[in-house]
Amino acid sequence: MIQVAVMGYGTVGSGVVEVIEKNKEEINKKCGAGEAVNIKYILDLRDFPGDAYESKIVHDVEQILNDPEVKIICETMGGLKPAYDFTKRALMLGKSVCTSNKELVAAHGPELIKIAHENQCNYLFEASVGGGIPIIRPLNYSLTAEKIDAITGILNGTTNYILSRMEKEGVDFAEVLKDAQEKGYAERNPEADVEGYDACRKIAILSSLMCGKNVKYQDIYTEGITKITSTDFVYAHAMGKTIKLLAMSREEEGQFYAMVAPFLVSKSHPLYMVNDVFNAVCVHGNMLGDSMYYGRGAGKLPTASAVVSDVVDCARHIGKVIMCFWDAQDVELTGIERTSHRFFVRVALENEKKALQAFERASVIEADVPGEFAFVTEKMTEEEFDRKAKEAGMINRIRMNE
Amino acid sequence: MIQVAVMGYGTVGSGVVEVIEKNKEEINKKCGAGEAVNIKYILDLRDFPGDAYESKIVHDVEQILNDPEVKIICETMGGLKPAYDFTKRALMLGKSVCTSNKELVAAHGPELIKIAHENQCNYLFEASVGGGIPIIRPLNYSLTAEKIDAITGILNGTTNYILSRMEKEGVDFAEVLKDAQEKGYAERNPEADVEGYDACRKIAILSSLMCGKNVKYQDIYTEGITKITSTDFVYAHAMGKTIKLLAMSREEEGQFYAMVAPFLVSKSHPLYMVNDVFNAVCVHGNMLGDSMYYGRGAGKLPTASAVVSDVVDCARHIGKVIMCFWDAQDVELTGIERTSHRFFVRVALENEKKALQAFERASVIEADVPGEFAFVTEKMTEEEFDRKAKEAGMINRIRMNE
Repeated sequence: MIQVAVMGYGTVGSGVVEVIEKNKEEINKKCGAGEAVNIKYILDLRDFPGDAYESKIVHDVEQILNDPEVKIICETMGGLKPAYDFTKRALMLGKSVCTSNKELVAAHGPELIKIAHENQCNYLFEASVGGGIPIIRPLNYSLTAEKIDAITGILNGTTNYILSRMEKEGVDFAEVLKDAQEKGYAERNPEADVEGYDACRKIAILSSLMCGKNVKYQDIYTEGITKITSTDFVYAHAMGKTIKLLAMSREEEGQFYAMVAPFLVSKSHPLYMVNDVFNAVCVHGNMLGDSMYYGRGAGKLPTASAVVSDVVDCARHIGKVIMCFWDAQDVELTGIERTSHRFFVRVALENEKKALQAFERASVIEADVPGEFAFVTEKMTEEEFDRKAKEAGMINRIRMNE
Repeated sequence: MIQVAVMGYGTVGSGVVEVIEKNKEEINKKCGAGEAVNIKYILDLRDFPGDAYESKIVHDVEQILNDPEVKIICETMGGLKPAYDFTKRALMLGKSVCTSNKELVAAHGPELIKIAHENQCNYLFEASVGGGIPIIRPLNYSLTAEKIDAITGILNGTTNYILSRMEKEGVDFAEVLKDAQEKGYAERNPEADVEGYDACRKIAILSSLMCGKNVKYQDIYTEGITKITSTDFVYAHAMGKTIKLLAMSREEEGQFYAMVAPFLVSKSHPLYMVNDVFNAVCVHGNMLGDSMYYGRGAGKLPTASAVVSDVVDCARHIGKVIMCFWDAQDVELTGIERTSHRFFVRVALENEKKALQAFERASVIEADVPGEFAFVTEKMTEEEFDRKAKEAGMINRIRMNE
């Protein structure tokens, strides 16, 4: 028996219990050595009278930490407090922790991995990025012969759902958000999603694994989708493109860049077809070129499935360290003002001349939008763009992903 | 030092040497424990005067097999003879083998895995399916909490390149094939690719990992792309679809189905956008739903990168068995006559009445093709379709992937 505790019996936590129950045959087989996974405790502040797992519910974390039989803990509480403290104590006791908690991984990943390894156990976080998409393990176990130099992802399901509906229905952000909130696809406080903070934490995690060092999420330039309008989609459509919230990081000649922002994406790009709540991560390696990992970026069962895949990995490695390269040393990111793109720009019709003076080699975009003039600039740094844009009387600008 | 031998210094073998040389820093780090990978021997019948690795070339396999320092062998010879014999002997000596040889894996996979495990070493084959796309490891290590019930892939780069060009340029199969052969994208003897045999072996491997038992490639219904014409693409375009050679397997109520054939694929399907030499594999799990893995399906460096990722895995597990569930017990596949699809059908104009009598609830497809009548049937079994099609005077039929 491999005794497991689940901390936090919310959406993901109850999903973990459900996945382990429904697929126990496959899971026990994959753990190997005739072992079976058993949920011994579920930690939650609440009681769950009538729940099939009612008898496993405990309110005191000490009961789990003090039980030497518990070898693996699923941390599905979210947030930093008390998850950080519980995780640290569990790892120091040699109990592996599998988590879906991206805030905690982004904030304290390297420290917790180090503590785990010092205590011959593991801190795994497949579910923290891309929900059910296997991406952490492919980066750590599969792309081991590659020098990975770029990662570009659609890493937030809520914003991708909103942008997909804006595109399909031609309606504005606020309207779709309201409907998405009513349907439960967006949180009542949607800031973490729509301002890009969630995607920012996820790309910080992926970037850290790319570099082998620590990319601080606080250092990543982050721009959300709140300024994107249905008019932007009219232009996108005229250009044969769509608008996606991309999280990206890139290494170029020893410099690291990372950002989260809406981008215009071409039909020929594999991320173009990633719609609704689906997420995807493109990874570029120096031998392999482009590869992409696609699937459900969120949701109870996909996320729980990823947590349980970590449980299986821990069960296969009881007392052994699974390699993970993420040093505590911080990476110095190069400011985005030095990154270059082409920019799509909209100005009021009366500013046409002014804008074309500022951006000499612009390509005009024809679309049926009265009172406006729109164009795409040549490739230039953010710094140069910002300087020129000041003189152009801009309505909105969106970066182009090429 | 981890001493490695490469068997076969052709395209993939020389790629393996190149990847290990170019990315040695990353690779050695990922092997862990301060170890460095070193290529000690390269087995080939030929000499390579002037080659940087000339001094490593050996012509006698015994030199490699008899050297106890060699722990890992990359088998990049291809074909069954003498690769099967060499692999078996190496594994019996406790030397792990990493291979790109799909013929050998499809023909003798479970036997070789068993021998490896009995001798505390490993037989790994990430490069045998999907070139550089990490798919074997995600199936074995990542989707461990899933009951996988369907795999659908574009698994052959040559046919996908040919179909992509037929679609883009509106030209016929023979013309594109000839040009592809001249450019080196297709073999002089293209049968293994264009008749679907290559994709068949690859889906046999993936299906075996899905079932945990042996799916014999000989049992898989296989239809190539040689009958697809530019006219079929005219209709595909009229339907908003494209034509792809799909390799698929599916479990449904304990029955296993597998087949390789051209299918009409809708724009909304993630495989629609997989063009040119790219490949992709869609995996459906009961918790996760759909996930997809996309990348270069062939080519020297991507394939070599996959072989070297296996070398790293072996290096991390010297003397230890890496789990892989693929029993020798054969799976009994259900005949495809019992699978159901909708079918796209073209008949000569004079057969319109006859065809509509045979297929009562057909949806007519309008396209600018003189002298023909085309329609899509309702969903029916292959058996029922074949019976009805006999009375319809058919020009061509393509299955619909829905």
